[in-house]
Amino acid sequence: METTPTLPDNPSFNVLNIPTSDQPRLVIVGGGFGGIQLAKSLRGKGFQVVLLDRHNYHTFQPLLYQVATAGLEPDSIAGPLRRMMQSTKDFYFRLANVNRIQTEERILETSLGQLRYDYLVIATGSRTNYFGQEENFGKAFPLKQVPQALDLRSQMLQSFEKAVISSDLNERKELMNFVIVGGGPTGVEVAGALGELKNHVLPSDYPDLDFRQMNIYLVEGNTRILAGMSEKSGEKALRYLKRFSVNTLLERTVTSFDGHQVVLSDSTEIPCQTVVWAAGVRGNVFQGLPEEAIDRGRIKVDSYNKVAGLDRVYALGDVAKMESEDFPQGHPMLAPVAIQQGQLLAKNLKREQKGKTQIPFQYKDKGSMATIGRHRAVVDIGKIRIGGIMGWYIWMFVHLWSIIGFRNKLVVFWNWVWNYFTYDRGTRLIIRPYIPRDNVEKG
Amino acid sequence: METTPTLPDNPSFNVLNIPTSDQPRLVIVGGGFGGIQLAKSLRGKGFQVVLLDRHNYHTFQPLLYQVATAGLEPDSIAGPLRRMMQSTKDFYFRLANVNRIQTEERILETSLGQLRYDYLVIATGSRTNYFGQEENFGKAFPLKQVPQALDLRSQMLQSFEKAVISSDLNERKELMNFVIVGGGPTGVEVAGALGELKNHVLPSDYPDLDFRQMNIYLVEGNTRILAGMSEKSGEKALRYLKRFSVNTLLERTVTSFDGHQVVLSDSTEIPCQTVVWAAGVRGNVFQGLPEEAIDRGRIKVDSYNKVAGLDRVYALGDVAKMESEDFPQGHPMLAPVAIQQGQLLAKNLKREQKGKTQIPFQYKDKGSMATIGRHRAVVDIGKIRIGGIMGWYIWMFVHLWSIIGFRNKLVVFWNWVWNYFTYDRGTRLIIRPYIPRDNVEKG
Repeated sequence: METTPTLPDNPSFNVLNIPTSDQPRLVIVGGGFGGIQLAKSLRGKGFQVVLLDRHNYHTFQPLLYQVATAGLEPDSIAGPLRRMMQSTKDFYFRLANVNRIQTEERILETSLGQLRYDYLVIATGSRTNYFGQEENFGKAFPLKQVPQALDLRSQMLQSFEKAVISSDLNERKELMNFVIVGGGPTGVEVAGALGELKNHVLPSDYPDLDFRQMNIYLVEGNTRILAGMSEKSGEKALRYLKRFSVNTLLERTVTSFDGHQVVLSDSTEIPCQTVVWAAGVRGNVFQGLPEEAIDRGRIKVDSYNKVAGLDRVYALGDVAKMESEDFPQGHPMLAPVAIQQGQLLAKNLKREQKGKTQIPFQYKDKGSMATIGRHRAVVDIGKIRIGGIMGWYIWMFVHLWSIIGFRNKLVVFWNWVWNYFTYDRGTRLIIRPYIPRDNVEKG
Repeated sequence: METTPTLPDNPSFNVLNIPTSDQPRLVIVGGGFGGIQLAKSLRGKGFQVVLLDRHNYHTFQPLLYQVATAGLEPDSIAGPLRRMMQSTKDFYFRLANVNRIQTEERILETSLGQLRYDYLVIATGSRTNYFGQEENFGKAFPLKQVPQALDLRSQMLQSFEKAVISSDLNERKELMNFVIVGGGPTGVEVAGALGELKNHVLPSDYPDLDFRQMNIYLVEGNTRILAGMSEKSGEKALRYLKRFSVNTLLERTVTSFDGHQVVLSDSTEIPCQTVVWAAGVRGNVFQGLPEEAIDRGRIKVDSYNKVAGLDRVYALGDVAKMESEDFPQGHPMLAPVAIQQGQLLAKNLKREQKGKTQIPFQYKDKGSMATIGRHRAVVDIGKIRIGGIMGWYIWMFVHLWSIIGFRNKLVVFWNWVWNYFTYDRGTRLIIRPYIPRDNVEKG
C-alpha cells in the first residue's frame, strides 16, 4: 500500500481543479455540524478552505426521525453546502468521498483523485454501529442519512398498504409490528413519533385496519432509556412512551432479525418486517491513519483537537475522541460538542499563525433533550429537569433556532403548525426503491 | 392468454380484500386529475368506489418541472390519495398496477391479483411518447412523474459538480449543455426555468464556472412553439425564452442521443449529457381492450366517455380519445378536460341509475398558459392574450388556486416568495440513484 504513486506537489497537476493560493490549504472532510462551523469560522482567516463531502448538502440530523415518520420533507432539514458558503473567498466545495490518507506526503485519496493538503481537519462524523453483526442486521433500517430516512418512511407506509390486503394473520402481524433497537434519543424519538402516528394519524388513512394491532417495541440493553440524560428524565420519558402505546423492553438486546422475525436475548420472538436500528454509532474513519491514533473507531485527539502523532492533522465532532477529566471515555457524540470544537479550532489555527498559545477545549454543556410525541419532551439543563408540555415548547424552540437557514426555519415551523392542528402528515409519499440500501450503508 | 383462469364472482375469494357492498362496485384506475375528480364527485352517489394507482399520491403535473429545476420540493406538489379521500364511505384505495382487463368476466388483472368490477373507469393518463424510438432515447430524461423529476434535478446538479473539476474542454461542454426536446408547455417551462437558474441562481453556487458556457437548447419540429396556444402567445414566448438565454431551434428534430452527443435532423451535433424529453405523450393503455377501441395509443370514447363496444367501461382524461366537431383529433390532453369529464361522468352515472337521459360532454375552455422564468408568462383566455408580468401573476394565481390542499398551497406560495426575493433555490439536494430509471419509465 505504501507504494501508491504520490502526486508531485505541483499545482498544475490537480485533478480536483482547485487553484493555487498564497494561503495555506486547509481541507475539511465532512460537512456536518463541526465541519461547517469550522468552515464558517475560518472565513477571512488566512486559509484556502476546501470542503469535501459525499453529499452536496448538510443534514440536520436531530430532525431526521421526523423525515422518517412523515412529519417533515427532506429538503426542510437539509442545507445545500454551496449555498451555506456562498461568496466566501478562496473556498472550494467538492462532492467526494475520502478513501485513504497518506500522512507522509500530506495527500488525501478521494473518489475524484488525489488532493494535497497543508492542514487537514477530519470531521467525518459517525456511522451506524452494528457491533460487528452487520450480517445479522443487514435488513434493519439505519437512520443517519436523508436517503435512509426516506427509505424508512416508504417502508413504513408500504407495510400498511400491504397489511390492508393481507389475509394471512401472521403476515399482518409482521407488517404492523415495529421494533426500534436502542433507547437513546433517536430510538426514543422514533418510537414516540410512531406512537403518535398510530394514535392520531394513521387510523383515518386506513379505516379498514385495526390499529390496536399495531405494536411498537423499543428494545434497550441497559436498565433505563436515555442513558445520557438524568434518571428523572429517563423515567419521565418512559412514562410518556407508555402513553403513546410504546412497549419499552429494557435489559434485553436483539440477537437476530431475518426480515420477518426479531429474536431478543431472552428468546422473545416478535414477528416484524421493520426494524429501526438506533443502537449505536461509531466514528467514520478512513484508511491510512496510524493505528495508535484509533480507539474504538474514533480518532484520538488532544484537547486542541490535534490527532495524536500527526502534524497539522485535526479531528473534531463525533469522529474525535477527546478524553478529559469530565469525559474519560471521550466527549459525547453530540452536535454542540462538534460546533464548539469547530469554533475553537478556527480560533486556535489563527492563534498558531500569529505565534500565540493554544486554548484547550472546554465543553459548555447546553443541556440535552428528547421529545416523545405530541406535547411531551424531557429536557436537562444543568441541574434543571423540565418535562411535559413546557419541555416540548423548549424542544421546539431550540430545534427551530438551530436549524440552518431562514427558509428552512419557516418551512419547518409551518409544517409543525399544520401537523399540530390537523393531526395530518403532509409527506406520506412512497417513493421506492429510493436508493440501493448497500450504497447508503457505507458511512 | 385467453385461458387465464378467471375468478369466480365470489366475494369471499377477494385478494384485494375489498368487502362486499350492496352498492355496485365502480373501479377507477388512476389517481390523476380525472380519477380523483370522479372519486370525489361520486361521494354518496350509490357506488362502492375502488381507486387503484401505482403511487400512493396524486401528482400535480403542471408543477413537476419546478421540482426538476430545484424550485419546489416533491412533497409540495403531491397529495396522498388516502388523505384526499379520508372519511369517504365505501371507498377503498389500493396501491396496484393494472396489467390487463378481461372484459367478458369484468375482471381486472392487477399486480395484487384479480379484481371484479361492475363499472370501470380508465383514467390512466398519458406516458412519455418516444414515437417508437425508445432505444435511441433511452438515456433522455422524461418528466411525467415525481421520481423522474427528482432524477433530472440530481442529474443537472451533478453535471455542474462534474464540470467544476473537469479539465477536458469537450466534457465540460457536454456537462454544461442542456437539450430540451419538444416546444410544448413542458419543454418551454423547463427551458425557461433552466434559463433562470443560469442567469440568477447557479453563478453564486459555482463561482469557478463560467456560465456563459452553459447553453440551453429547445428543439421543436414545428415552425413554432406552444402549438396549442395562439400565434401571438407563441411568438411572445419565443422572445421571453431568448431573454432567458434559451436557443430555440425550430423545424428540427432530434435523431439520436448516445449519452454524450445529440444529433439533430439537420446534422447539427451538440455535445450534451442531459436531454429532457418533452416531445410528446400517448395514452397509458393496459392489455385486453378490444383492438377497435384503441386509436393511436388512446381509448376511443363517445361523448359520454363510454368506451366503444364495451358495457359499463369508461375512459376519461388524457387516455380517452373523444372526437367532436371542435376536436376532430380528440380533446386536448389537459387537466381541465379530465376534471370536467370526471364531473360529468359522475353526474351521468347517477342519472343512468335514475333512468334519466345522459348529458353529452361539452368542453369549457378555461384558457391555456405557460410561464417562462421570472416575470414572464403567456396566457390565452378565449380571444384574450396576456403576456409579461401580468400573465405571470395570472399563471401563479391559477396554479396556486388549483393545487390540492391548503397545506400545499401555503408551502408552494412560501417557496415562491422565497425564491423570488432571494434568487435562491431551497431544494438543491443530489439524492441519486433515486430510482432505477427502467422502473419509472413504464407509464
